[in-house]
Amino acid sequence: MANLPILLDYWPSMFGMRARVALREKGVEFEYREEDFSNKSPLLLQSNPIHKKIPVLVHNGKPVCESLNVVQYVDEAWPEKNPFFPSDPYGRAQARFWADFVDKKFTDAQFKVWGKKGEEQEAGKKEFIEAVKILESELGDKPYFGGDSFGYVDISLITFSSWFQAYEKFGNFSIESESPKLIAWAKRCMEKESVSKSLPDSEKIVAYAAEYRKNNL
Amino acid sequence: MANLPILLDYWPSMFGMRARVALREKGVEFEYREEDFSNKSPLLLQSNPIHKKIPVLVHNGKPVCESLNVVQYVDEAWPEKNPFFPSDPYGRAQARFWADFVDKKFTDAQFKVWGKKGEEQEAGKKEFIEAVKILESELGDKPYFGGDSFGYVDISLITFSSWFQAYEKFGNFSIESESPKLIAWAKRCMEKESVSKSLPDSEKIVAYAAEYRKNNL
Repeated sequence: MANLPILLDYWPSMFGMRARVALREKGVEFEYREEDFSNKSPLLLQSNPIHKKIPVLVHNGKPVCESLNVVQYVDEAWPEKNPFFPSDPYGRAQARFWADFVDKKFTDAQFKVWGKKGEEQEAGKKEFIEAVKILESELGDKPYFGGDSFGYVDISLITFSSWFQAYEKFGNFSIESESPKLIAWAKRCMEKESVSKSLPDSEKIVAYAAEYRKNNL
Repeated sequence: MANLPILLDYWPSMFGMRARVALREKGVEFEYREEDFSNKSPLLLQSNPIHKKIPVLVHNGKPVCESLNVVQYVDEAWPEKNPFFPSDPYGRAQARFWADFVDKKFTDAQFKVWGKKGEEQEAGKKEFIEAVKILESELGDKPYFGGDSFGYVDISLITFSSWFQAYEKFGNFSIESESPKLIAWAKRCMEKESVSKSLPDSEKIVAYAAEYRKNNL
């Protein structure tokens, strides 16, 4: 028990969830520590002095920061089970490209959908639907972005699905009617225990987003 | 000759330069194709429909996009010579963290230094110097960010050094007096043919930046 990896995390964070899913996919037991954003722990500040953000995975006393970096680290530190990447360099490059697409095009857009109002929210909705359609076309008829197996892009994107209900409620639109295949993919991923155990209930996220909107908009 | 990898690039781009340095570090012969931004080639638009940006490396007819992704691909596709990463997962995670830092904290800041004026430029200068000092402290007394060997973080950052003279001229400050170790590191890197052959003359960059300022500010 003394040497369990420690995950510094925050429950509604889709970035934190990525680390949870990755660790559970590998069957790695870890100690979950919830961070209080108004009073960050000394371990967080000391482990991630540059960005001061969760998730941080502290393994053998050494911190790994930034969610996609944590996922790649987990894959390389526990290589025996469920590899997140294909073995060929081109497939690996494609996976990295799409996870990066999620961070660059999807993350900002989804925030505007639930965390903004008026014109900014409308612009966010447009960007969000555009990104969703691009992702759906990349998924195509494959069961997972990783092909037959759940991989790096799946881990990077699935954590946002716990927010879908919040996007629909505050953005006033239906993701399923825009992107039925993506919704089917999300349901497929949720059948995996690594995912269902790591994502909070959609209702809790809706309440969290409502509280944010009340305080900030 | 028929199967040479093709690099779609643009000469003053520090992102394009990363791909050039990576290929030359591996001793890979490639066909360099200069893109015209006002009239992008059909191959660029078809190879990178998402971002429509250089660099794109087309290898065996398949495109790899986004500069850090290209560098990682080059490392994995030509693994025999000059590995860009250490072999241990933690060292690999650290390298990815710092290359990501360059993209997130350094890229925007440097643009404001040479491509903006007034308050925005001053804010950029402050961010730039802050980022430079953090990078210098990470370098410490090592010859390279990769330790004894030139690696992923070195490739990610060195290409900006061809712009240093432009930053100093338009930002009206001295990088060397802020960060002498980083300047010594840049000189050390420039002794490598892979770097010196891939970076344009600083004077050409200064002229390019001056032209940009004349047309845009």
